[in-house]
Amino acid sequence: MSTTKTTERVKQILSWYGSDNPGVLTNLARMLNHGTLGGTGKMVILPVDQGFEHGPTRSFAPNPPGYDPDYHYQLAIDAGCNAYAAPLGFLDAGAARFAGQVPTILKLNNSDSLAKMEPCPAVTGSVKDALRLGCAAIGFTIYPGSSARNTMYDEIRELILEAREHGLPTVIWSYPRGSGLAKEGEQAIDVTAYAAQIACQLGAHVVKVKPPKDVVYQDEAKKVFEKFNIPTKTLADRVRHVVQSSFNGRRIVIFSGGEAKDTQSVLAEVKEIAAGGGFGSIMGRNAFQRPRAEALQLLADVMKIYHS
Amino acid sequence: MSTTKTTERVKQILSWYGSDNPGVLTNLARMLNHGTLGGTGKMVILPVDQGFEHGPTRSFAPNPPGYDPDYHYQLAIDAGCNAYAAPLGFLDAGAARFAGQVPTILKLNNSDSLAKMEPCPAVTGSVKDALRLGCAAIGFTIYPGSSARNTMYDEIRELILEAREHGLPTVIWSYPRGSGLAKEGEQAIDVTAYAAQIACQLGAHVVKVKPPKDVVYQDEAKKVFEKFNIPTKTLADRVRHVVQSSFNGRRIVIFSGGEAKDTQSVLAEVKEIAAGGGFGSIMGRNAFQRPRAEALQLLADVMKIYHS
Amino acid sequence: MSTTKTTERVKQILSWYGSDNPGVLTNLARMLNHGTLGGTGKMVILPVDQGFEHGPTRSFAPNPPGYDPDYHYQLAIDAGCNAYAAPLGFLDAGAARFAGQVPTILKLNNSDSLAKMEPCPAVTGSVKDALRLGCAAIGFTIYPGSSARNTMYDEIRELILEAREHGLPTVIWSYPRGSGLAKEGEQAIDVTAYAAQIACQLGAHVVKVKPPKDVVYQDEAKKVFEKFNIPTKTLADRVRHVVQSSFNGRRIVIFSGGEAKDTQSVLAEVKEIAAGGGFGSIMGRNAFQRPRAEALQLLADVMKIYHS
Amino acid sequence: MSTTKTTERVKQILSWYGSDNPGVLTNLARMLNHGTLGGTGKMVILPVDQGFEHGPTRSFAPNPPGYDPDYHYQLAIDAGCNAYAAPLGFLDAGAARFAGQVPTILKLNNSDSLAKMEPCPAVTGSVKDALRLGCAAIGFTIYPGSSARNTMYDEIRELILEAREHGLPTVIWSYPRGSGLAKEGEQAIDVTAYAAQIACQLGAHVVKVKPPKDVVYQDEAKKVFEKFNIPTKTLADRVRHVVQSSFNGRRIVIFSGGEAKDTQSVLAEVKEIAAGGGFGSIMGRNAFQRPRAEALQLLADVMKIYHS
Amino acid sequence: MSTTKTTERVKQILSWYGSDNPGVLTNLARMLNHGTLGGTGKMVILPVDQGFEHGPTRSFAPNPPGYDPDYHYQLAIDAGCNAYAAPLGFLDAGAARFAGQVPTILKLNNSDSLAKMEPCPAVTGSVKDALRLGCAAIGFTIYPGSSARNTMYDEIRELILEAREHGLPTVIWSYPRGSGLAKEGEQAIDVTAYAAQIACQLGAHVVKVKPPKDVVYQDEAKKVFEKFNIPTKTLADRVRHVVQSSFNGRRIVIFSGGEAKDTQSVLAEVKEIAAGGGFGSIMGRNAFQRPRAEALQLLADVMKIYHS
Repeated sequence: MSTTKTTERVKQILSWYGSDNPGVLTNLARMLNHGTLGGTGKMVILPVDQGFEHGPTRSFAPNPPGYDPDYHYQLAIDAGCNAYAAPLGFLDAGAARFAGQVPTILKLNNSDSLAKMEPCPAVTGSVKDALRLGCAAIGFTIYPGSSARNTMYDEIRELILEAREHGLPTVIWSYPRGSGLAKEGEQAIDVTAYAAQIACQLGAHVVKVKPPKDVVYQDEAKKVFEKFNIPTKTLADRVRHVVQSSFNGRRIVIFSGGEAKDTQSVLAEVKEIAAGGGFGSIMGRNAFQRPRAEALQLLADVMKIYHS
Repeated sequence: MSTTKTTERVKQILSWYGSDNPGVLTNLARMLNHGTLGGTGKMVILPVDQGFEHGPTRSFAPNPPGYDPDYHYQLAIDAGCNAYAAPLGFLDAGAARFAGQVPTILKLNNSDSLAKMEPCPAVTGSVKDALRLGCAAIGFTIYPGSSARNTMYDEIRELILEAREHGLPTVIWSYPRGSGLAKEGEQAIDVTAYAAQIACQLGAHVVKVKPPKDVVYQDEAKKVFEKFNIPTKTLADRVRHVVQSSFNGRRIVIFSGGEAKDTQSVLAEVKEIAAGGGFGSIMGRNAFQRPRAEALQLLADVMKIYHS
Repeated sequence: MSTTKTTERVKQILSWYGSDNPGVLTNLARMLNHGTLGGTGKMVILPVDQGFEHGPTRSFAPNPPGYDPDYHYQLAIDAGCNAYAAPLGFLDAGAARFAGQVPTILKLNNSDSLAKMEPCPAVTGSVKDALRLGCAAIGFTIYPGSSARNTMYDEIRELILEAREHGLPTVIWSYPRGSGLAKEGEQAIDVTAYAAQIACQLGAHVVKVKPPKDVVYQDEAKKVFEKFNIPTKTLADRVRHVVQSSFNGRRIVIFSGGEAKDTQSVLAEVKEIAAGGGFGSIMGRNAFQRPRAEALQLLADVMKIYHS
Repeated sequence: MSTTKTTERVKQILSWYGSDNPGVLTNLARMLNHGTLGGTGKMVILPVDQGFEHGPTRSFAPNPPGYDPDYHYQLAIDAGCNAYAAPLGFLDAGAARFAGQVPTILKLNNSDSLAKMEPCPAVTGSVKDALRLGCAAIGFTIYPGSSARNTMYDEIRELILEAREHGLPTVIWSYPRGSGLAKEGEQAIDVTAYAAQIACQLGAHVVKVKPPKDVVYQDEAKKVFEKFNIPTKTLADRVRHVVQSSFNGRRIVIFSGGEAKDTQSVLAEVKEIAAGGGFGSIMGRNAFQRPRAEALQLLADVMKIYHS
Repeated sequence: MSTTKTTERVKQILSWYGSDNPGVLTNLARMLNHGTLGGTGKMVILPVDQGFEHGPTRSFAPNPPGYDPDYHYQLAIDAGCNAYAAPLGFLDAGAARFAGQVPTILKLNNSDSLAKMEPCPAVTGSVKDALRLGCAAIGFTIYPGSSARNTMYDEIRELILEAREHGLPTVIWSYPRGSGLAKEGEQAIDVTAYAAQIACQLGAHVVKVKPPKDVVYQDEAKKVFEKFNIPTKTLADRVRHVVQSSFNGRRIVIFSGGEAKDTQSVLAEVKEIAAGGGFGSIMGRNAFQRPRAEALQLLADVMKIYHS
């Protein structure tokens, strides 16, 4: 039953994007006002790009109905997610049937894990596709730390400009990775905060990062964390720093869940994210690799945490 | 009530850019006529690109209100700076709210310090963005000395041409760096003068370099400095040579402040720059990493030096 | 030393244009912040298109220095006008010399009075010219009442869109005229209010109309004016109705002075416009056809009325 | 051996075009510096568009060598004209052979006299052609007074913009004609001054009009001519008024010779044009319809008048 | 008063470029007809790209007025050079002021000597810039022998094509250099002749090489020089071979002067170049590093040699 009134909180969030045209604001509002969390200023998004990124078997064998693109549309709708994000093929497969039932985000670049190269996704869709499919936003992944970062930044610069002109906001997945970074640096708190900042500076409307770990990776950063006693012990602490690093909380920052894990761990992590002021979660494998009923229950529990 | 009159000095400066269209001249005048130094022909610019270049924690932890993009807009306005320069995200965050209150410069390329690569920033904004955001100029960084210099020079060639056609002048940050240069060469007087010349030859309307040190780096240059007794002992001497190397003082050359340091050192340096005929300062970390009241005081003192 | 601060009133006015990008707001602010009335939210603009519209002799013989395009630039600057509006040739002739000294408006369409045809100006400049010349806005005339109105509305639709994308606001001169209207209807209060509404609906940021007369022209309108007792007796009454008809006062509406007349009449009219809540005057022949000293005095007196 | 020095007079003339790029100035200088009158600021141009406008027989039968396009190139060169103007075909026929020997002006629109229609020439060449042919300018005819004037003004708006971007100035032939004007109005002094003004406002760098007659055509103009005692008795008087109407003499205005007539009449007219401050003559039929030796003599005599 | 007549010799030279459009021929003629050597078919060009290539101090300290871009424009004009060649910044700085006084060549690629890389200049200007600045030609450097030669050949292929379409000829600086060549090979006669041939085959209208030395570098070439007794002893011999290698003398080949040296050496070298049939000299450091009076004298003496 929709008696969707745009709440004061949503109006406040939209006010942070005052340089954008009303089309961009409208599409942000479509996501913020939709689903169980509609109006709260919090978001839970279902992303399903693993078929492209990790291959179908690794992605969908644990819960075979997920081979079917309709499954994910229906899951996002039934779970009351704010939006469903996927590459061109998955959206194309269901966009007509599910038109108007859940806001969608077209992920415009994707990497497969067959080629071995410095991390740099291919652009696999366009703003025109996003319009054609009725999407509420475009999505894009950057890998700060990759020596191919200039290619990605060049691409997103042009895509954001084009999307904006057509009234579409941009969600940036910012995942530090590549020859500039050791493995342990990828989720370090300083690096994650930096990755969020880069996405914001590139013009992202919504930023997605991984939950940061209690590690400070860069030497120059270490000195600063110590000198100013920036707390990093709990995930809530670290999320708070990432949110601050995202224009002092004036950009929407959401956190991915990463690999599939047990329900308790997922909920514990979400509680910390919520406590630290995170705007929500983007939860893929932890949702669609569970049997449908479990997934719906988990997503309901996650939303309850953000709602309280 | 506003009574900005374009002074004879500003008219003289504009006369150096006689091949440019009136749009470019108008936007140069917007910066030269604005703020405390308006009309003097001197400029103090607030640049805040460190969130992108060094990461948010290193940049903003010393003075946490700086995590908020509005903070810098307001600082530039209240300090009476001629202009405020930042990457796309920071300008986007405040451009509507602060429209018309301070001329802005959109920095069109930026490097993060996560990737390890031969110095070469990514292009992260466009001339269209600068127009959409109401900017008075575009900004661009080149790294002479980098083996990737041709990429940067190619990019700025096209951006200057496009900006010029749309009435926007260009500010070039010229920072020698890369595999062609040892660390001690980066701020050598011969190298800095050369960097300024390159920026001018590329078509920059305003050039920003670092204050040069009393070192001559290139062997061929050493012979010439000795043979012609070119004085390099004081910073004022060296600034004078850089200004001369910028088309005999017919291009606006301003000097960056570099790392944060104590107030005495900053003011001493500015006095030398002013004595050597420098056109002003671009002062980032020394401004926004201080508490606001101190920053306003420092900027006022700096402007007083240029004004006298 | 310049100390232009954007006032609360200017911020309020800019807030009415929230769907526009910061470039448009910045250029509106350039005009609102400039000159004697800078910051008051009132505007006095010098328009000189009569050379094209009525011919040079009729326009400039009364005060021959006006044959020279520089004369008008200097008059607008010295009088402290918010802006100077003219066709391509006049702006081209002085834009480089006077760069940065007064905001300019490029009038993009103009009619000469040699051809006999249904009123429809020719488009004689482009948005590219406005950018090249450093203008703060484009100007355009529509003739509601002309059977050629669709041509004009089509042209301005495309020009507003292009100007907006490039950060330029639009001033529409809305002058009812043509085979649809008898002479006495052209300045009728119902027709003038209608003309203002049309300009606003076409997307104008600033609307210019003629001071309406105490005549209601359209039969259907007459009934409504009578039924609701809409006062039209004084010019202030009528200006109030035009301002109300311009989105309840949320678009800037200014009034032209029409043919040259004696100083007392001009000032009396301006007092009424100010009393009725008009945002200002656009005063051409009454300014430039007087000797310079008289024109400066008149414009100063007009600005004093708006300021008080 | 060539020793063309740009004179102070030419520098002064170029200074009137300060909003133009150096390419436009360079091509203006090419014409102003060329030929017998090179450096004087005066111009005599040979135009040969009558083959298109009046047909070949009427044009060339009086002096049959003129059927050959080379004839006119050679005439312009040998006579020391500042430039030679013609439609695409005539220039194409000789441009390679005579490259570098005389500046050329590509007339971009032309009317034939076979069709009966409201005066409106066809566009018969492009800016690309002008560059390909090495021209120093484009030429364009407008007919103020024609009900098709908007078509012509639209066309020239776009051509001037394109020419300017490519460094080419524009010469406008401004000939009042069409259903808005009776025959006796076409060369009236008020109408001619108006036609010159329109060309200047459209952005012309050089304006060509017909020598005005001692008639004031428009009623409103008559009052003004009388009230301000504007002298119109001699051609010199009238030329003076046209020059004044061309931005107070800050645009180059030249006068056509019209129909072929006897030598005495031509020279008498030129003396008046020179006395009134006209910048020169554009002389077609009076040149190429005479035998070559006579034509050379006449042009030499004309140039002598402008030179003295 | 100017009386430039295109001579038979210039017409003959232009006839070699029969596939080019009249715009290219016109601009070649502009250079061939200008200055002291105008009409002789010989050329002396002033090139000033050393500020970019070697740095400002090394270039201008020997004669400090040369820091000022206007100095070189004035030197080229006063010396009666056929043309002045420089990068974007230097031309931009004076193009409006000196419009029409000397043909200019925009050097479209330039190298700085800070980066260490296989020789490959950056493209630092465009054909649009050349048109905007009113240039008579574009200039471009290739380094045959560099492993990056394909990049340069690709770039010049596109630039020549674009320049040609817009009526501009191309001057190629052909300097063998790079990992394919030992130092002593760079000015060998076989290599210089080869470099000239490559420039001609790429479509150059004017070729600039260094004066070749009496060395044959390539083994295969040595056999041929010996077998056919090709004389290489005097510079005149070698110049003759280079001219022959430039399409049997049907392309304009001029010779650079290299490092500054004493007057006697310069004049002796020029005499040999003239004796060998060279078309002229391009003389930078030997001109602008001398005091102005000496430079003017030297250039006059050089021109006298070519003229006799």
